[in-house]
Amino acid sequence: MALKVGRGAEAPPFLVMDVISAANARAAALAPGEPGVIRMEVGQPGTGAPRGAAEAAIRALQAGAPMGYTEAFGLRSLRERIARHYAGRYGVAVPAGRVAVTVGASGAFPLAFLAAFDPGDSVAMAAPFYPPYANILTALGMKPQLLPCGPETRWQPTVAMLEALDPIPAGLIVASPCNPAGTMLPPAEFAAIAAWCEARGVRLVSDEIYHGLTYGEVPETTAAAFPGAIVVNSFSKYFSMTGWRIGWLVLPEDLVRPVECLAQNMFISAPHVAQVAAEAAFDCREELEANIARYRRSRALLLQALPEAGFDRLSPADGAFYLWADVGHLTNDSVEFCRRMLAEAGIAATPGVDFDRERGRRFLRFSYCGPEADMAEAPARLAAWLRR
Amino acid sequence: MALKVGRGAEAPPFLVMDVISAANARAAALAPGEPGVIRMEVGQPGTGAPRGAAEAAIRALQAGAPMGYTEAFGLRSLRERIARHYAGRYGVAVPAGRVAVTVGASGAFPLAFLAAFDPGDSVAMAAPFYPPYANILTALGMKPQLLPCGPETRWQPTVAMLEALDPIPAGLIVASPCNPAGTMLPPAEFAAIAAWCEARGVRLVSDEIYHGLTYGEVPETTAAAFPGAIVVNSFSKYFSMTGWRIGWLVLPEDLVRPVECLAQNMFISAPHVAQVAAEAAFDCREELEANIARYRRSRALLLQALPEAGFDRLSPADGAFYLWADVGHLTNDSVEFCRRMLAEAGIAATPGVDFDRERGRRFLRFSYCGPEADMAEAPARLAAWLRR
Repeated sequence: MALKVGRGAEAPPFLVMDVISAANARAAALAPGEPGVIRMEVGQPGTGAPRGAAEAAIRALQAGAPMGYTEAFGLRSLRERIARHYAGRYGVAVPAGRVAVTVGASGAFPLAFLAAFDPGDSVAMAAPFYPPYANILTALGMKPQLLPCGPETRWQPTVAMLEALDPIPAGLIVASPCNPAGTMLPPAEFAAIAAWCEARGVRLVSDEIYHGLTYGEVPETTAAAFPGAIVVNSFSKYFSMTGWRIGWLVLPEDLVRPVECLAQNMFISAPHVAQVAAEAAFDCREELEANIARYRRSRALLLQALPEAGFDRLSPADGAFYLWADVGHLTNDSVEFCRRMLAEAGIAATPGVDFDRERGRRFLRFSYCGPEADMAEAPARLAAWLRR
Repeated sequence: MALKVGRGAEAPPFLVMDVISAANARAAALAPGEPGVIRMEVGQPGTGAPRGAAEAAIRALQAGAPMGYTEAFGLRSLRERIARHYAGRYGVAVPAGRVAVTVGASGAFPLAFLAAFDPGDSVAMAAPFYPPYANILTALGMKPQLLPCGPETRWQPTVAMLEALDPIPAGLIVASPCNPAGTMLPPAEFAAIAAWCEARGVRLVSDEIYHGLTYGEVPETTAAAFPGAIVVNSFSKYFSMTGWRIGWLVLPEDLVRPVECLAQNMFISAPHVAQVAAEAAFDCREELEANIARYRRSRALLLQALPEAGFDRLSPADGAFYLWADVGHLTNDSVEFCRRMLAEAGIAATPGVDFDRERGRRFLRFSYCGPEADMAEAPARLAAWLRR
């Protein structure tokens, strides 16, 4: 008899993962002497973990540490180190008891959504958006409620947009800086949005994964100012530790125990050796700031050279390491455009449809966290390709 | 305004995680000279990863491997190595394309459940059961359908129990050997259950996490014989790599792409360094078999000495590293009994209510994968404590 397939099986792919596979395949098929593939598709630093983090992992393994399960919320020393990070970076007090170490930010979202929302609930977010927000909500039977944003609001939501929602959503996801546009909410607007959420009983989920990666204004954290908000962060971006799969939540008091129970069941714990490395990463400030300096240089170079190459409609790029490029003058099928760009110019980028299903047909996302030499070479290759 | 809390917030704890915290606290509070806490609560080998696995991780880190995201289903070489494991251990062909590397078996369950079932669906399982089966299903809005089992069926379901179900469930979870009882399904009964599932369109989820840890009969895998079944496995038990958080799924063809999309969104990938270590673990057969020999000795010792100490109603313990002890002659409140046993005898065990909410009040689970000397010391301590 035919076996049932669940509605969760309709979850759309996180397309960039398929682009990564295609770029891997293209790189593997290169003829000798052919120029390499330039990777601008993936939100992953070209660097690995900071040296001190990797060395802490090596030392612990050499000492024969058994690396068993940790408590569900992670090593106590790591939770305390994260709490001190809030004091050090933002000057705010966040108790370690509200910090939950998770399997990346990815692993944090299902925990947060399941604890805060029910199937059928709507959760609002700006569009374009980080695809797993919507895809995870959908897989869990919740409803993404999209707020179409454009350059006039720096691709970020406004209180006016929220006021227009009917019915009022159960939650709102905000990211500043955001992915894919890299833009930030002005502090006053962010505070107004958070206050609106508090007044309306809307659970604010603040994705702070790109904190530390900003090139002008430095964002504040919502972890202290808005005690009902859920804050998501990760060691993948600023700390350059993507594949280690370590993130964290700062939880409101009412969700601490519920999320702990969910984490015990769904994850048991985050990977132990990665927790050891993550704790050491806090002491690698110099190396991490050198990464940021590199992103800053690549960003400046691309903001000048991409327009000259024909990509002249770029987002302001306040933070993160992305440029959201309007390519409506070049294509109305960004998937095919990206496919050809990879095949013919050897440059991988992510089609906009991953982030905004309809409007994304005329957008793509360039990521500039790869090797600096690659970022410097990309515009000339793109210019030559567009001229063909 | 008060903020909403989702129904997922009602997920019960995975109690053993709380027992671990209590045992940690007890160990930290020991007076000088006081005998240490004997850990029989956690399903975690006292050994760490096999040396060759840890060394592979060390070598990769020393070589500066960036340890970025892998593809969502994991390193191709690891998937191929797992496929070869099926040929080597079971003599069956499982294509690498059906193998998905996951964040432990824990991370595999939400992917499998979301791909195969819908909110509202019933999924059957024997009781007692591994608590996250039911807790994850409940968090996802699905319904655990419990089949109360006892020693007369080795704590395993039968076709007759399934025939009696009305309505027929969407899925059935089977584990052989199982947790907490450690018992196995006779091969003919397992085949009959799988055939019943195929005939009735019931998705079979076969949890094979304790394969490799058996002391008599060697189980077959359902991965090849029943192409509609989902097989879950992990590096945590036989491979002794709990805190590395690496497991895998063998997926039926119809669920490969749906689970890949879900994994891209919910996990991005399993931890990279742990995947490197896991691949090397397949070459550590000698060390792993030495672990099994130790479990075998501890099992034999406890099966003799625990009854003499007063715990004389034990499950047959065909596999895994658990003894499911009926303590109905000693208590009808296993939570309080375990609390006192930890406080007074310094022995941590898991109260049965974690695995069977009602009947578990008169059961507890002893885990015997800890250090051999501890397992040897436990019965005398327990006997002295019960005599008090």
